[in-house]
Amino acid sequence: MLRLSPPGFLRFSQANSFEVIYGGGESNVAVSLANYGIPVEFVTRLPENDIGECALMEMRKRGVGTNQIVRGGERLGIYFLETGAVSRGSKVIYDRANSAISTIKKGEIDWEKVFDGATWFHWTGITPALSQGAADVCLEAIQAANELGVTVSTDLNYRAKLWKYGKEPGEIMPDLVEGCDVILGNEEDAEKHFGLHPENVDITQGESMNSQAYLSVCKQLKERFPRAKKIITTLRGSISASHNTWAGVLYNGDEFLETRTYQITHIVDRVGGGDSFMGGLIYGLLNYKNDDQKALDFAVAASCLKHTIYGDANLVTVEEVEKLMGGDASGRVSR
Amino acid sequence: MLRLSPPGFLRFSQANSFEVIYGGGESNVAVSLANYGIPVEFVTRLPENDIGECALMEMRKRGVGTNQIVRGGERLGIYFLETGAVSRGSKVIYDRANSAISTIKKGEIDWEKVFDGATWFHWTGITPALSQGAADVCLEAIQAANELGVTVSTDLNYRAKLWKYGKEPGEIMPDLVEGCDVILGNEEDAEKHFGLHPENVDITQGESMNSQAYLSVCKQLKERFPRAKKIITTLRGSISASHNTWAGVLYNGDEFLETRTYQITHIVDRVGGGDSFMGGLIYGLLNYKNDDQKALDFAVAASCLKHTIYGDANLVTVEEVEKLMGGDASGRVSR
Amino acid sequence: MLRLSPPGFLRFSQANSFEVIYGGGESNVAVSLANYGIPVEFVTRLPENDIGECALMEMRKRGVGTNQIVRGGERLGIYFLETGAVSRGSKVIYDRANSAISTIKKGEIDWEKVFDGATWFHWTGITPALSQGAADVCLEAIQAANELGVTVSTDLNYRAKLWKYGKEPGEIMPDLVEGCDVILGNEEDAEKHFGLHPENVDITQGESMNSQAYLSVCKQLKERFPRAKKIITTLRGSISASHNTWAGVLYNGDEFLETRTYQITHIVDRVGGGDSFMGGLIYGLLNYKNDDQKALDFAVAASCLKHTIYGDANLVTVEEVEKLMGGDASGRVSR
Amino acid sequence: MLRLSPPGFLRFSQANSFEVIYGGGESNVAVSLANYGIPVEFVTRLPENDIGECALMEMRKRGVGTNQIVRGGERLGIYFLETGAVSRGSKVIYDRANSAISTIKKGEIDWEKVFDGATWFHWTGITPALSQGAADVCLEAIQAANELGVTVSTDLNYRAKLWKYGKEPGEIMPDLVEGCDVILGNEEDAEKHFGLHPENVDITQGESMNSQAYLSVCKQLKERFPRAKKIITTLRGSISASHNTWAGVLYNGDEFLETRTYQITHIVDRVGGGDSFMGGLIYGLLNYKNDDQKALDFAVAASCLKHTIYGDANLVTVEEVEKLMGGDASGRVSR
Amino acid sequence: MLRLSPPGFLRFSQANSFEVIYGGGESNVAVSLANYGIPVEFVTRLPENDIGECALMEMRKRGVGTNQIVRGGERLGIYFLETGAVSRGSKVIYDRANSAISTIKKGEIDWEKVFDGATWFHWTGITPALSQGAADVCLEAIQAANELGVTVSTDLNYRAKLWKYGKEPGEIMPDLVEGCDVILGNEEDAEKHFGLHPENVDITQGESMNSQAYLSVCKQLKERFPRAKKIITTLRGSISASHNTWAGVLYNGDEFLETRTYQITHIVDRVGGGDSFMGGLIYGLLNYKNDDQKALDFAVAASCLKHTIYGDANLVTVEEVEKLMGGDASGRVSR
Amino acid sequence: MLRLSPPGFLRFSQANSFEVIYGGGESNVAVSLANYGIPVEFVTRLPENDIGECALMEMRKRGVGTNQIVRGGERLGIYFLETGAVSRGSKVIYDRANSAISTIKKGEIDWEKVFDGATWFHWTGITPALSQGAADVCLEAIQAANELGVTVSTDLNYRAKLWKYGKEPGEIMPDLVEGCDVILGNEEDAEKHFGLHPENVDITQGESMNSQAYLSVCKQLKERFPRAKKIITTLRGSISASHNTWAGVLYNGDEFLETRTYQITHIVDRVGGGDSFMGGLIYGLLNYKNDDQKALDFAVAASCLKHTIYGDANLVTVEEVEKLMGGDASGRVSR
Repeated sequence: MLRLSPPGFLRFSQANSFEVIYGGGESNVAVSLANYGIPVEFVTRLPENDIGECALMEMRKRGVGTNQIVRGGERLGIYFLETGAVSRGSKVIYDRANSAISTIKKGEIDWEKVFDGATWFHWTGITPALSQGAADVCLEAIQAANELGVTVSTDLNYRAKLWKYGKEPGEIMPDLVEGCDVILGNEEDAEKHFGLHPENVDITQGESMNSQAYLSVCKQLKERFPRAKKIITTLRGSISASHNTWAGVLYNGDEFLETRTYQITHIVDRVGGGDSFMGGLIYGLLNYKNDDQKALDFAVAASCLKHTIYGDANLVTVEEVEKLMGGDASGRVSR
Repeated sequence: MLRLSPPGFLRFSQANSFEVIYGGGESNVAVSLANYGIPVEFVTRLPENDIGECALMEMRKRGVGTNQIVRGGERLGIYFLETGAVSRGSKVIYDRANSAISTIKKGEIDWEKVFDGATWFHWTGITPALSQGAADVCLEAIQAANELGVTVSTDLNYRAKLWKYGKEPGEIMPDLVEGCDVILGNEEDAEKHFGLHPENVDITQGESMNSQAYLSVCKQLKERFPRAKKIITTLRGSISASHNTWAGVLYNGDEFLETRTYQITHIVDRVGGGDSFMGGLIYGLLNYKNDDQKALDFAVAASCLKHTIYGDANLVTVEEVEKLMGGDASGRVSR
Repeated sequence: MLRLSPPGFLRFSQANSFEVIYGGGESNVAVSLANYGIPVEFVTRLPENDIGECALMEMRKRGVGTNQIVRGGERLGIYFLETGAVSRGSKVIYDRANSAISTIKKGEIDWEKVFDGATWFHWTGITPALSQGAADVCLEAIQAANELGVTVSTDLNYRAKLWKYGKEPGEIMPDLVEGCDVILGNEEDAEKHFGLHPENVDITQGESMNSQAYLSVCKQLKERFPRAKKIITTLRGSISASHNTWAGVLYNGDEFLETRTYQITHIVDRVGGGDSFMGGLIYGLLNYKNDDQKALDFAVAASCLKHTIYGDANLVTVEEVEKLMGGDASGRVSR
Repeated sequence: MLRLSPPGFLRFSQANSFEVIYGGGESNVAVSLANYGIPVEFVTRLPENDIGECALMEMRKRGVGTNQIVRGGERLGIYFLETGAVSRGSKVIYDRANSAISTIKKGEIDWEKVFDGATWFHWTGITPALSQGAADVCLEAIQAANELGVTVSTDLNYRAKLWKYGKEPGEIMPDLVEGCDVILGNEEDAEKHFGLHPENVDITQGESMNSQAYLSVCKQLKERFPRAKKIITTLRGSISASHNTWAGVLYNGDEFLETRTYQITHIVDRVGGGDSFMGGLIYGLLNYKNDDQKALDFAVAASCLKHTIYGDANLVTVEEVEKLMGGDASGRVSR
Repeated sequence: MLRLSPPGFLRFSQANSFEVIYGGGESNVAVSLANYGIPVEFVTRLPENDIGECALMEMRKRGVGTNQIVRGGERLGIYFLETGAVSRGSKVIYDRANSAISTIKKGEIDWEKVFDGATWFHWTGITPALSQGAADVCLEAIQAANELGVTVSTDLNYRAKLWKYGKEPGEIMPDLVEGCDVILGNEEDAEKHFGLHPENVDITQGESMNSQAYLSVCKQLKERFPRAKKIITTLRGSISASHNTWAGVLYNGDEFLETRTYQITHIVDRVGGGDSFMGGLIYGLLNYKNDDQKALDFAVAASCLKHTIYGDANLVTVEEVEKLMGGDASGRVSR
Repeated sequence: MLRLSPPGFLRFSQANSFEVIYGGGESNVAVSLANYGIPVEFVTRLPENDIGECALMEMRKRGVGTNQIVRGGERLGIYFLETGAVSRGSKVIYDRANSAISTIKKGEIDWEKVFDGATWFHWTGITPALSQGAADVCLEAIQAANELGVTVSTDLNYRAKLWKYGKEPGEIMPDLVEGCDVILGNEEDAEKHFGLHPENVDITQGESMNSQAYLSVCKQLKERFPRAKKIITTLRGSISASHNTWAGVLYNGDEFLETRTYQITHIVDRVGGGDSFMGGLIYGLLNYKNDDQKALDFAVAASCLKHTIYGDANLVTVEEVEKLMGGDASGRVSR
């Protein structure tokens, strides 16, 4: 996806140039993993024009494999982003109808070939929100992964401005999530996708969410989707557009694990925060086997750092994440 | 329309920002006229989002009336422009499918109200190329203008990458052009829209066109569309992407008028060259009544200056055009 | 007025470009009102050169009427702004002597024509500080407004670096303020213009002002200028150049109303804060008739948002102000 | 002086930043000389604010002495520059009324002290055009220089938009020029300042001037100002704003010397062309004693290079000028 | 290598930012080939820091294989580039001593592994100019290539400012060139490396070289290095820094082939012109087997286009080169 | 030294331009002093190329004397700086090996001449860390200063990534520091240079240091280097990369003086913080004779302001520092 945003804190009507970032939910996760040294292929559909080529080049630059990318369709999806500050939130305008990925059709991707040698498949709730075709391809992929023993993770990622092709999330998402081993989602995702909701949480109050409320949602999710071994959520406290708190919880059936809460006092770019969490989580689960707390800590620290990085993707190394995870948030100059 | 282009001569894959210009065929003509002090309203359909609002603001800034603009649809059309130099031509990638104007439907614009007090209506061949709806609305407008005694002009403006909705130009354009009093078009337009063609002209040779060839096309156009009182064409000689020659001819049934040929040796931005010619021509025909030569001279000088202006629109004054038209092409500092 | 400022936090001597903003006290109020959908005309005098034209275009772009603007004089006033941070305050260098507005003379503006159909006239204390001519024209306007039943508001806006034409504020301002129905001013304005002062307030301490002190000033102002129905002041607490607190109080003869205090923790641009308050207040008084608290709340929320907008003018919508006014300061992404 | 210009070829109304250059006639000459290793002091009056300080810093950076600069006055003069291309000339808007130099008064500069150890004094016709005070100070300087045996040179530099303080050039300039040993001026200067004019020259035709016409002007100047030992003029042929021809002639009473004509086919910035010529000429006359042809050749080559340098000042070295003067205009990469 | 250059035509002392380009002789050739769809690996040594990583990422982005890159050494070589115009040539300042590649030692690269599956090896005369180690590794590579039947090409690329490690080119180059099948070099290379020289050519005169002179050099080279089947040279005519002519000749023992001469009238960036020629030539020789004329034409057209591309590398496609090669230099907009 | 940094908070791999700053430890101190009106000469060795010249020009612009600068060597040292935020610290990559200053040799600077008329000499621990030659020259200078009665100050400034020429700090620094009258250093400097260390301090915890610990280090330093009359240290509390606390302590043998602690809540650029402290301290000790508390207060306030200034050098005036020192940290607009 192509992101276009006015420089600094300018409003759209003040800009005569837009900063260009190529990213998007799944590709952000892929870039995170490539930065951590995990071999990763990004599977998508890109238009055969220079803008599509630029998106592909950005993936390649970051070390993400692009051999499974299908070319076709008319356009790359676009979103316009105006960066907010303090009490003025950032603003997103989607222009992604008829993007190459949304006009994909069942059968265009040979999932058996894609999964050859793969051990993990990640998808997000944004894809099936785009079109019936995208939802179909998602289901194909999940079923193939399940058959081939590939672990499946999802970030539920509800987006109110999508889901315009005539289907409700509740008609599509359950079939997809059923095949997932790891589920990342917040309370809004759970409510909008499956009608589940925590109690007594007002997300506009700038307070960190009550973790008991999350536990209740996690348990409900786990009951509904028994294949899932781990249910995770991020806890964002929106004190302002410039200052958030950030933490995570993980429920694995046995334990309900929490992390410390970070103060992100001078946000550079909060877009992609969830994706960077997911990237960190997958790395953590792969790397710290049998230590869900460490995996979760890595995910939270990684995504905490993301808020200091411009763009959608989290351009940090394992070493940087582990330094923060180890407790050094001092931000001292490394020289 | 939103134009996005890499700074300077960068290729798409080298840019991490795009320059932003709001423009488009008819709006460029409107801006020209507003700069010349002619009261003008721009009629279009813009989406109700900030990007649509930015396009509207640009019109308002330039003194173009925006009261007849209809709001609706999903998106503003986009085109990506990479600026070429010397032997590398500029490159345009259209991303205008499903733009607000292309999803317009018959009846959305009350043309009687629009034309109340108006004396001139201008449209271009780009609009009917977008969709059946846009073509229908064009026809409505032309018929209303004809009934109300409003002069109608058109810039045929053939664009090969448009015309994708299942109709050929030959099925649509003749009905529209029949209602026109003034026709601007080049040899390619005549050929692609109506199957007419001049002889012995190779547009890639960087040579100024043979004016006899043009005269033949003009006469054919005039025969086919008898309402048209003036047939005009621009003569662009593409020596390179940086150096063009530029002139114009006008056939009014009696005379075949030509202008001097300008050497545009250091092109700043050639997009909108034709639109600026049209803007100059309308001004000229309105202002130098009964002097087609002067009107044509104004049009050519105006559009010659356009090639020195960044963006799609021609931001020059009558005084500046008349100075060049008067023979002073010395480009001396005014101080 | 033309504002020139080094990019980011650069000092003047570090910049080799200056950001350009066209604005100024009254025009900022006008832009606010236009953004809220209130029809508004900006009355000023601009030089007949391209720089004056640019200022006019910016107004037009923002939807402010420019038909009453008089053209003449030699130059547009300029101010240079260096943006501070933390303990380094922003720095303003005025270069506005002999601006077109300061060389205006009595009789150049036909106030009866200007006020035809108008219901509200707003002026600021900056205008009479420029020159005798500007002060005279101000008085003309106020008297005409009073005669024609047009509500008059003022922002006292004392500027120590102006008032250089040989008159003290105390010789000029009282006559002008006598004709006002709504007065916005802070303790410094009251003291410097009329010799009134609150008690025990040290504006450099970064503490929010004591509201009792303000009440005392408001009452004194109301006694001195009995026509005024509402006296309002903003309460800025300067914790640092990057972090201010912000609130407002209004005294309407009966009640002394206060708002909540906002923490503006990451200021983007605090210039125009007072103007944006005034714009919000006029909108509020017009829109929430008989509910001064709501009008005041709107004004404070509007100007709170201004601090997150680059430039002099407050580019926000009623919807955005009402969201903040309704208590949502979370700055969450709108997508 | 502060120069503010839109980036690239943008028109004023398209820019939201202005490039900043500190320069001006005499300071440009000073910078040229400093670049050539000649010890030089710049004498002017600058306001005591940060903008004045920036101008001083730029001089100091370039190695020009600033010890003789007087501080005072209200503002630094400003000019706005819009850069043209091809048939659109650059545009200058002056905003220099009431600049610090224009409000200078006789006696503010101690010329005896300034000239202590000096051998050459250069002034331009811009200074006496600003105000009576500036003209008076100019005269003081010239008289002191004459008394102290300091060579005096002038660049007549007629500017139609100046000379607004009630005196005609013809009332002021003759007394000043009488004290000069070296006079640089073109045909327009001679005509506007002294009523002298060459024959049959149309400066808008883009043709190089007829050198006989110049010879006639030079002779007339020499007769009128017998102290002058050398009369020099630049010959600019304005083929377009992007392409000029450039040459010079020198008349020393005996010989009428000419240089080769340079084709400046891709002008980067032609402002300061004359000043760079003067800087080169002074260097040449000082360095190639008794070889006026070489001095003239150096001046022309130096100013030819200036057209490739952004800004007002000529940032080239003696080595670079001599390379071009020696005939190598190939512009090959030096590596 | 990291290239740092002031924006536009600014001199070093005017810039407060430098544009960043990662490139260099061999990598430019590699990028060209990748753009033409040829699988290519870039073999070099990069430091293990973020700057080295950036260089690697740029290669990867462009589709060049980076698996054979060795990491080590202290720094990435740097060069500073100031872009000239008209009579002011571009200026290069090298800062490449102790770069990672110059401190490489024999044996660090396993050439057998590198050449596994390879058919072509290209090196340039810049590498052995850096250090004894780099020269040694070059020789290793050439010998391995010869043994393994890999075609070897070289661009002689003499650089006067290199060759500082105590050896003369004549002591090193002959051994290396002996193993080459294809040699690209101009008259300066031949003279400085091997003492061969054409007759009567003055490279500063801006005239295209006399091709007979080149033929004589080519023949001498072929005699001296009998393995070489093709000797090629580019013919650059430096009319000015902004306008060059460009052509090529090839001698294959039988024929002496020439191309048309291109007028490159508005150069964007001429650095990398030779590399882009080499990239085009290798592609041409691989693709148009047995048609040296076509290969040469492709090389010249490709490098002609390079002069319109910012940066060191030639970012064009086969389709674009073939269009120009086919005679269309009109630079018309592709839309 | 040349500092190259990506704009804003971009990571190296996201930048296609680098901001350029010329600075470095001792030159930053020199610029501070020049800003305070203290005559100062900067003594260093710069390469004879344009990059070296740019560094020299920056000094000259800021009013620092450059007459004692020696020219020679191959290159200007470079460092790359990536600016961090919140929990991501800034990152420095040094590329200063073989810089002109590091290849200096004993005897290249005539210290007697340099110290003619001087009263104070300042050096930092960075210089002897570069090379044996630089260390030798440092020792020469200190010995000459001692002999000539010039006060000597040092900033110990330990840099782990330097000290690569085969000597340990402990072998070099003691001899140098023995000649110093004023020593600035923090706990890390004391430990790494002399093996001294405070107790119980964890510099990564974001807590302000315990001043007792510092007192212990100061006393140890004073015992070890009895010539030193004042031992000073800065106290930085790294709450995050965006928010630091800042204070200072001074031990003069009698008293252990402390300052208030500043909250630097929105850091613009923390590089050069220590240098700006030193510049303030020297000014303070010179200006507030016999009032070490005031000198220390000035140093802390000055360096507090530095954190709001982009670049390495502290561009503030005495007036600005004294305003903050006087307790006004409100950052109000000065207008």
